Amino acid sequence: AAGRGGDMAAWARAVRGLLLDVSGVLYDSGGDGGGAPIAGSVEAVRRIKASGLKLRFCTNETQATREKFVKKLQGMGFDISVAEVTAPAPAACRILKERSLRPHLLVHEDLVPEFAEIDKANPNCVVIGDAAENFTYANLNEAFRVLIGMEKPVLISLGRGRYYKETDGLKLDVGAYMKALEYACDVQAEVVGKPAKMFFESALAEMGVPPQQAIMIGDDIENDVGGAQRCGMRALQVRTGKYR
Amino acid sequence: AAGRGGDMAAWARAVRGLLLDVSGVLYDSGGDGGGAPIAGSVEAVRRIKASGLKLRFCTNETQATREKFVKKLQGMGFDISVAEVTAPAPAACRILKERSLRPHLLVHEDLVPEFAEIDKANPNCVVIGDAAENFTYANLNEAFRVLIGMEKPVLISLGRGRYYKETDGLKLDVGAYMKALEYACDVQAEVVGKPAKMFFESALAEMGVPPQQAIMIGDDIENDVGGAQRCGMRALQVRTGKYR
Repeated sequence: AAGRGGDMAAWARAVRGLLLDVSGVLYDSGGDGGGAPIAGSVEAVRRIKASGLKLRFCTNETQATREKFVKKLQGMGFDISVAEVTAPAPAACRILKERSLRPHLLVHEDLVPEFAEIDKANPNCVVIGDAAENFTYANLNEAFRVLIGMEKPVLISLGRGRYYKETDGLKLDVGAYMKALEYACDVQAEVVGKPAKMFFESALAEMGVPPQQAIMIGDDIENDVGGAQRCGMRALQVRTGKYR
Repeated sequence: AAGRGGDMAAWARAVRGLLLDVSGVLYDSGGDGGGAPIAGSVEAVRRIKASGLKLRFCTNETQATREKFVKKLQGMGFDISVAEVTAPAPAACRILKERSLRPHLLVHEDLVPEFAEIDKANPNCVVIGDAAENFTYANLNEAFRVLIGMEKPVLISLGRGRYYKETDGLKLDVGAYMKALEYACDVQAEVVGKPAKMFFESALAEMGVPPQQAIMIGDDIENDVGGAQRCGMRALQVRTGKYR
């Protein structure tokens, strides 16, 4: 991890902005809302900020509101604020408003407050996030029935990750359940979050840095590295987190 | 349904063997092991048998052993015996034995006895069926971890249905959960049951009827109709069951 901090300092001389994945890079999450920082990462964030680089936390985390997520990381010692976080739920809310979509939510209960201002009556789409324990047989059937009952099903997925690592082991991520609904309803989900191009672009815009001068650092070869590269950024895969 | 019986009689003059789907064709299943016969279907089975046609029940049912399944149908008045049923679990057991595979089972608890004689210690594959209430978050994660821990994951799926109708509504079928595991582990499942060619072929062999002289009747356009047609059989989709 100290080596990783050193690598970051080397990159830093060439670039102006850094996008950092969080889960699996800065900490290993725990299903109960806990988790543990990866050794050296608190110090790495401090050094990046001290270097003058623009920094943005670019996460597909959907098990909590940004507020709660940031509070947890601050509790582990990270220098992070809500304004520095790019996350799928707010991006989804913008889309829902633009297209007058009223979602049926299949998400973690701690994420629900992010959708507080969205009309959810008489749903005309389904939004799926990493619902974790809310991925029950009953809830999956319910989301399926909402979709299959639509003339043209609209499924919005907060990320498309395959799996991730928690302190007690690997867990299926939202992408697996997204695929289940896609197959059952013969639809293709619209992915909000990494690796969607628009998601990286909005993070870059928030930093005011063009893709050529930014680097994405993550543990997921598809969602972090592949997604960033398709936006014209360079990307670095760390061998923590789910790396196998 | 009386009309359907009439249609069947018309086909009967041209063919020697009939493959009948069960759920959605003869009865609408109920999640609690119950269900209700579709009007006229008890009489239709009786007429088919009286006509001298060879008959085989060709089902992807994996929520119960064949014994329990047949007992339920007999209780509804159907003339059916275990020896007349072609189902995925016994077909899977043959494959497991042939290839010395030891399964981790993600199936309905009432199906487990079908695997009584199969070695399940130290699993080197995952068998997924329509586990229904057993499709919990914990059980899906467990099956995923078994698969992802293998050098070359082997996933055997008892059918690949998208959804089916129970008396209390539509339910996600095994195919949706199969897709979730396929995506998470980047593997392709081996499907046992409809629409696998080998499954129809073994049903035909059990009747001693070539595909050109047999008809498949089902409510699923892919698993029943498409699968049978790829085997050289004719097929008929009934508009009961999940037909929309």
